[in-house]
Amino acid sequence: MPAAIDPWGRNEVKDYGKIMADFGLKPFDEFAGAMPDAPTFMRRGGVFAHRDFGRIFDCVKGKKPFAMLTGLMPSGKFHLGHAMLAQQIIYYQQLGAKVFVTVADIEAYNVRKLPLAELRKIAIEEYILNYFALGLKPKGVDIYFQSERSIPYYRLIGMLSGKTTANEFKAIYGSDEPEKFISVAHQIADILHPQLPDYLGPIPLTVPVGIDQDPHIRYTRDITGRLPEFSFIPPSSTYHKFMKGLQGGKMSSSDPLSYIALTDAPEEAERKIMKHAFSGGRNNIAEHRRLGADLAVDVSYQYLLYLFEPDDAKMKKITDDYGSGKMLSGEVKQYLAEKVRKFLQGHQKKREKARNKLAAFSP
Amino acid sequence: MPAAIDPWGRNEVKDYGKIMADFGLKPFDEFAGAMPDAPTFMRRGGVFAHRDFGRIFDCVKGKKPFAMLTGLMPSGKFHLGHAMLAQQIIYYQQLGAKVFVTVADIEAYNVRKLPLAELRKIAIEEYILNYFALGLKPKGVDIYFQSERSIPYYRLIGMLSGKTTANEFKAIYGSDEPEKFISVAHQIADILHPQLPDYLGPIPLTVPVGIDQDPHIRYTRDITGRLPEFSFIPPSSTYHKFMKGLQGGKMSSSDPLSYIALTDAPEEAERKIMKHAFSGGRNNIAEHRRLGADLAVDVSYQYLLYLFEPDDAKMKKITDDYGSGKMLSGEVKQYLAEKVRKFLQGHQKKREKARNKLAAFSP
Repeated sequence: MPAAIDPWGRNEVKDYGKIMADFGLKPFDEFAGAMPDAPTFMRRGGVFAHRDFGRIFDCVKGKKPFAMLTGLMPSGKFHLGHAMLAQQIIYYQQLGAKVFVTVADIEAYNVRKLPLAELRKIAIEEYILNYFALGLKPKGVDIYFQSERSIPYYRLIGMLSGKTTANEFKAIYGSDEPEKFISVAHQIADILHPQLPDYLGPIPLTVPVGIDQDPHIRYTRDITGRLPEFSFIPPSSTYHKFMKGLQGGKMSSSDPLSYIALTDAPEEAERKIMKHAFSGGRNNIAEHRRLGADLAVDVSYQYLLYLFEPDDAKMKKITDDYGSGKMLSGEVKQYLAEKVRKFLQGHQKKREKARNKLAAFSP
Repeated sequence: MPAAIDPWGRNEVKDYGKIMADFGLKPFDEFAGAMPDAPTFMRRGGVFAHRDFGRIFDCVKGKKPFAMLTGLMPSGKFHLGHAMLAQQIIYYQQLGAKVFVTVADIEAYNVRKLPLAELRKIAIEEYILNYFALGLKPKGVDIYFQSERSIPYYRLIGMLSGKTTANEFKAIYGSDEPEKFISVAHQIADILHPQLPDYLGPIPLTVPVGIDQDPHIRYTRDITGRLPEFSFIPPSSTYHKFMKGLQGGKMSSSDPLSYIALTDAPEEAERKIMKHAFSGGRNNIAEHRRLGADLAVDVSYQYLLYLFEPDDAKMKKITDDYGSGKMLSGEVKQYLAEKVRKFLQGHQKKREKARNKLAAFSP
């Protein structure tokens, strides 16, 4: 029996390989090196699997139109995990994709029980502003709220709801709660509506997601074929690893020590890393020199690998030196902490400058 | 245990009294005589029950603003049963209500599996055109399609979906199918959205329905209280009897002999009544003279009572004479047939004249 994936769950993924096999995902390796100017974490295995990405790759290679959609749940602080996804959005925009960003405020309203106005503020202040500060260009990106999209989008929700059954929904999500169904129906419409005649019409579209969102992708792809009147092209998808929480577990918005927020004071972030980053270093220096660090569990190492050390030669040296025990845990932490401090110092200035890009988003 | 009501079912209602007791409906008697210039069928018991209608009655008496909403399922022919509801719509418009008419095309799309464009055509040609021909004025009525309503309407669907549970839905509807939930969610939004700030704000609103639609009313009233941010006033409702099918059973769009359509040729309608109307007359004339007709089952009699003989004195004479056996079944049929023929002749001319009122409804 396939390992269950709960898109609303808090399960940590232990075995990416098993999930790929169970659900028929293909490894991303063949594209990782071939995508032009890919972000660091895409080149280095942070994006590890896909469905039908060949169709997107062909568009990139052939300079043909394609689209990308991603979503954000307005909740908590914008942290490095979100920044990793933001880099993908920006990357696809640079590749020429028509970019859609869904603010899942209806889902958040039902799940988090917060007023829409408050969710709107979080989306703008924490997410959208940081996207722009990180380099997303307002022109050519369609950032929208589920609660105020468009008639054709909502019509699609009404239409697709008749194309499934309670049994199918329960088999995928283990639930028949109306609020879950309506959340999922919005998500399916999010993914499909860029292909409506009112938007781009049928077009290759990719959705970068965490593996926990794959049930939505599979379900959407199934339903795609049940709406032949729209000639939807089944959406493609890529799967990225979750960034580890600072202390080694999951990042959790309820635990500020589990993440570095992009609004953290730079010195505070530095301190968090030095004091709390889960280390793959050994119990004492002698042992460390002998065995080398356990890179697979070392959080600082992974932050460098996926985000903060884009230079391959430097990264290789860290890998070699830390893996062999030549470099100590404190040194790696220090190396990362400095990078993060500088990044935050620069980013926080950019963030304030980016406020003029929020004109389209009335509070 | 209360008698179950299935809003999607084909059950014929046998015992209105039991259903009223089971579901806490109040008799409409106290208002039936007091409503000014009420349509014939409302004065004569065709509207037999209500929830919270006192709130509406107070508005009528006090000339205060109120609203009315009803819906149509674009399907089959527009027949006398629909005309009875149309008379209520027109009556409320004359009383000064702000009138909303929902075309339940998303529900029809999911239930009848017809393309939206085809449903649109049926709604306009069969329903809306006949409403106008029967006297509904385009000014001051808001006729809309579920598939193209408005952002605030769809936002409400998203929000209310999180205010219920699968168990509650199953207890009311005996189903957890997504297409049923989405149909119901649209219907609840239909009933509530006139009270959104984008429309009228909180306002007394009544929904005239057949008893089979009461689950939607109860469910809507329950959910009303779970959206305190809108200060919705719980909607009122009235319940009308179903018009009997011509042959005594239910009207069914799949059986043209069960109804008189407003597009039937007048002579064809006359012939249908003479040949097929279910009679409460006795087995032979002698018996009929002795026992009188069984008025409770006589379809022609009921059509006269509720629709075609508004004159109380004349109706009383028919009741007396037919009930006592003085009048024969054929004579009552002939009386009705002539009324119906003349009505259709006049209506069909009005129908063509009313086409200029369809300007707002592009095909």
